[in-house]
Amino acid sequence: MQTVIIGSGNVAYHLAKAFKQNNIPLSQIFGRNQNELQKISSELNIPYSTQDLEDADLYIISVNDQSIEEVSGIISKKNCLVAHTSGSLPKEILAGEYRKSSFYLLQTFSKSKSLDYRKIPFFIETENIEDQQLLTELASKISANVMESTHEKRKYIHLTAVFACNFVNHLFARAKEISDSQDIPFDYFLPLIDETIQKIHEIDPKSAQTGPAVRNDQRVLQLHEQLLKEESLTIYRTINNSIKKMYEL
Amino acid sequence: MQTVIIGSGNVAYHLAKAFKQNNIPLSQIFGRNQNELQKISSELNIPYSTQDLEDADLYIISVNDQSIEEVSGIISKKNCLVAHTSGSLPKEILAGEYRKSSFYLLQTFSKSKSLDYRKIPFFIETENIEDQQLLTELASKISANVMESTHEKRKYIHLTAVFACNFVNHLFARAKEISDSQDIPFDYFLPLIDETIQKIHEIDPKSAQTGPAVRNDQRVLQLHEQLLKEESLTIYRTINNSIKKMYEL
Repeated sequence: MQTVIIGSGNVAYHLAKAFKQNNIPLSQIFGRNQNELQKISSELNIPYSTQDLEDADLYIISVNDQSIEEVSGIISKKNCLVAHTSGSLPKEILAGEYRKSSFYLLQTFSKSKSLDYRKIPFFIETENIEDQQLLTELASKISANVMESTHEKRKYIHLTAVFACNFVNHLFARAKEISDSQDIPFDYFLPLIDETIQKIHEIDPKSAQTGPAVRNDQRVLQLHEQLLKEESLTIYRTINNSIKKMYEL
Repeated sequence: MQTVIIGSGNVAYHLAKAFKQNNIPLSQIFGRNQNELQKISSELNIPYSTQDLEDADLYIISVNDQSIEEVSGIISKKNCLVAHTSGSLPKEILAGEYRKSSFYLLQTFSKSKSLDYRKIPFFIETENIEDQQLLTELASKISANVMESTHEKRKYIHLTAVFACNFVNHLFARAKEISDSQDIPFDYFLPLIDETIQKIHEIDPKSAQTGPAVRNDQRVLQLHEQLLKEESLTIYRTINNSIKKMYEL
């Protein structure tokens, strides 16, 4: 089977790397960003092009959600399977006469950070059972955690991931802004952060909640508000309010 | 040296356990909640009382911030050192004629979850150098990470911890609410969460940010807003807005 990955971002890079690590043939990586393609191509020893899309049986489009529709239009071939890796868009966003599918990896990807691909959940949706089998077999070479998923369910998986990953990371960024402002090394907080995450492996996060808001400790809440401003103050009030509502305080 | 811990909550329990594990003598745990005291006492083999406070050289008060002042008033002895474990209150909140100090452990504690005490940062503030040495030596038997800290700095350490731990946990609780609503097992998200945390051990969280908000992906942002309501929708808008500001989008 001939496979082409379209895109040169974080997901495209890690997907290409996962193919390589598991000896899955990859015919080409294709995209617009020559610089990034060149880097991936030389690291993973895969041909790349910004001009001539290779003929293939499977195209995996890993580009920004906004560009998927446009990019999918460059595939003029009909007898092939095309997948996108978006968590939010339906497979029907793909603009061609080929068979359409979704191939979603539930993970956060940065090029500089290596990953254990066996642990990444893959969610697959296709038009027919043969394509479902094909993509499931492919994904199973990479991960031990391959599932079918409708678009409806995938939207909620992605939304949950935004809260549990993107928003959590932003809280770390705002936390570091606070500690940096007082020359407190952010490293001090890593054991606390590790423990916070260890806990939810064992306890329901709702039961694991600690801190001044769930204790309804008005003295501390007011003191903290005095130390904060702008976006961090808004976050502080919003999350405390949400904690109040969740625990009916 | 005779030491008494006052309180029977999460911090008091773990502090007593850390003393025990490191063969530091503990004369008594004292408090109001007979039920909890009894459990701790029998698990750790330490005498407890709800009535008669043992004579000691050091009293460590580990109770809710709101109760510290009142509880500290029961110590009538003058020639002793009293510490509280609050991250936010000054040592002067202690209401007695003894020497006052702060003994703050930067960690999140649940009784059901065991901990590696060696990794917990301890922050100590006292009235004089002898007490500083005494508490530093004591804490150093438990942890490899013992530091001096003023009240001013400690307030910001606690505030940073609220963002990096309490608020992060609440996002997990809201995330689980979303995935539960669609019968999606929260376990699916654990590799993603682990990776999110792994990343900030290596990369500045500001540089590690991913997701629709930092990509300014309006299509996904609007879709997500349609899936959310009430507190989760408010959190979604607040954090996205904060991301927008941080990255000047």
